[in-house]
Amino acid sequence: MNKIIECVPNFSEGRDLEKVEKIVDCFRAKKGVKLLDYSSDSDHNRSVVTVIGEPESLKNAMVKAIETAVELIDLTKHTGQHPRMGAVDVVPFIPIKNTTIKEADKLAKEVAEEASNKCSLPFILYEKSATAAHRENLAAIRKGEFEGMAEKMESEKWQSDFGPATIHPTAGLTAIGARMPLIAFNIKIDTDNLEIAKNIAKKIRYSSGGFRFCKAMGVELKERGIVEVSMNLTDYSKTAMYKVYEAVKIECGQYGVKIIGSEIVGLVPMQALVDSAEYYLGLEDFCMDQVLEYRLLNE
Amino acid sequence: MNKIIECVPNFSEGRDLEKVEKIVDCFRAKKGVKLLDYSSDSDHNRSVVTVIGEPESLKNAMVKAIETAVELIDLTKHTGQHPRMGAVDVVPFIPIKNTTIKEADKLAKEVAEEASNKCSLPFILYEKSATAAHRENLAAIRKGEFEGMAEKMESEKWQSDFGPATIHPTAGLTAIGARMPLIAFNIKIDTDNLEIAKNIAKKIRYSSGGFRFCKAMGVELKERGIVEVSMNLTDYSKTAMYKVYEAVKIECGQYGVKIIGSEIVGLVPMQALVDSAEYYLGLEDFCMDQVLEYRLLNE
Repeated sequence: MNKIIECVPNFSEGRDLEKVEKIVDCFRAKKGVKLLDYSSDSDHNRSVVTVIGEPESLKNAMVKAIETAVELIDLTKHTGQHPRMGAVDVVPFIPIKNTTIKEADKLAKEVAEEASNKCSLPFILYEKSATAAHRENLAAIRKGEFEGMAEKMESEKWQSDFGPATIHPTAGLTAIGARMPLIAFNIKIDTDNLEIAKNIAKKIRYSSGGFRFCKAMGVELKERGIVEVSMNLTDYSKTAMYKVYEAVKIECGQYGVKIIGSEIVGLVPMQALVDSAEYYLGLEDFCMDQVLEYRLLNE
Repeated sequence: MNKIIECVPNFSEGRDLEKVEKIVDCFRAKKGVKLLDYSSDSDHNRSVVTVIGEPESLKNAMVKAIETAVELIDLTKHTGQHPRMGAVDVVPFIPIKNTTIKEADKLAKEVAEEASNKCSLPFILYEKSATAAHRENLAAIRKGEFEGMAEKMESEKWQSDFGPATIHPTAGLTAIGARMPLIAFNIKIDTDNLEIAKNIAKKIRYSSGGFRFCKAMGVELKERGIVEVSMNLTDYSKTAMYKVYEAVKIECGQYGVKIIGSEIVGLVPMQALVDSAEYYLGLEDFCMDQVLEYRLLNE
């Protein structure tokens, strides 16, 4: 593959794994498309798929996956920890190799156009593809969730960019667009008190005065009887993993709780992990060119 | 490049950078060979070059570099912090991609044969290429250094494997062989007391009861007025960077000194840095397949 774009669609199904497999199958055994990862979370009731591909092949596979998810997922019956507004909640396209954010944007719009026609599903463009500043942020678009979306879309501010003017009755609304790579990073805390996770999330996220490229929320992990600060780092080169980890550790101190561990959901760029190793090991004058695999990739 | 072997020759010149450039030039603009890194240390009076290549091309470039170094470097006039026995002190070959340790071993022997003929330089096979267990360890071979090597080689235990039976008058003896990847990792300490660095090195290295895959020595960095624990980690999957870093930190406590920083000399496999990030960030269930570049390399 010469040109590579990554796509990380989030589907609102994390419990019925047969359904998840049917959706994921759309990315399997397709020329020019490679399924890299997928993981389902039953607390979130959500699955995140990571796939890379050449633009045209990726488009066809993604449209097929949207069709499948719209058929299988019924949001009127959906419950879960993670906020959601659509069966296919969000579809970001990320430039990876020999491509630009502009090409990712073009691809997002093509997928939205084709899938909206096939499924009568409304799409709203977000992030770098957004048509107005107030429509860039996913959390702002999603506020009100599936249940409140029909009413919200009556406002001119929240009209769809592709497809019908209101929600699909069972599949809601999908956000789609181009963005830079992000890291889904969750830090787990040894308490079952959700308020603590929510408070810490508030302290570290941008929207309430925290790190510029950190989105965060508190989530209960019922199965383990603990909570987590669930984050998206939208620019790891400026808001590094070690920074938010250390900040969460400090906030924990105030509540007499401790970090148990953390988790990266899906893929992570090598640079983000190397930055953390560099910080903790106190490496002086280190550069990515010293990483063997980095050199091999640029052969 | 389909088959890739790495070579990390150490040359006993780190002050006269014109000479270093002449040696390094042997790896430049050669088909099938790529110079990845080189760094010179004036305290050590030593340069470490990292180069990868296809076996045949790498052989030709390495033989040429040995010829050049033997011409330019005179060990009878060499002083430096780092122990040395040869102008070309050691030449390890490491299998990187689509190659085995056996092929690296074969290449080491071919280079030794050709270069010994061209330069009248004796070679001793070390590490995985060694002809006896007592000849595996570089420090054991090098003990006595250039000045004591002629006498040492009179013993049957230390006869050369290729070339003349005694040292080259100005270029000494060269160790050559195949080995697994290692990491040159130095930890800097805020004292000018060399004894402290030496004592810490003793505590953490295998030969005196420390980590199985750690070689270490204390070194004075006169320019900065500090000392460092200079290490080779010979199997980072078992003796990880964070383990030795934390161990050095603990030993520092005993002397009331602190780690200032650290340094990786030359290349490092991505996995070694990821392992440290994983440890410090407390990542649960993480696997290399989540690293985007790792996946791209295995496309």
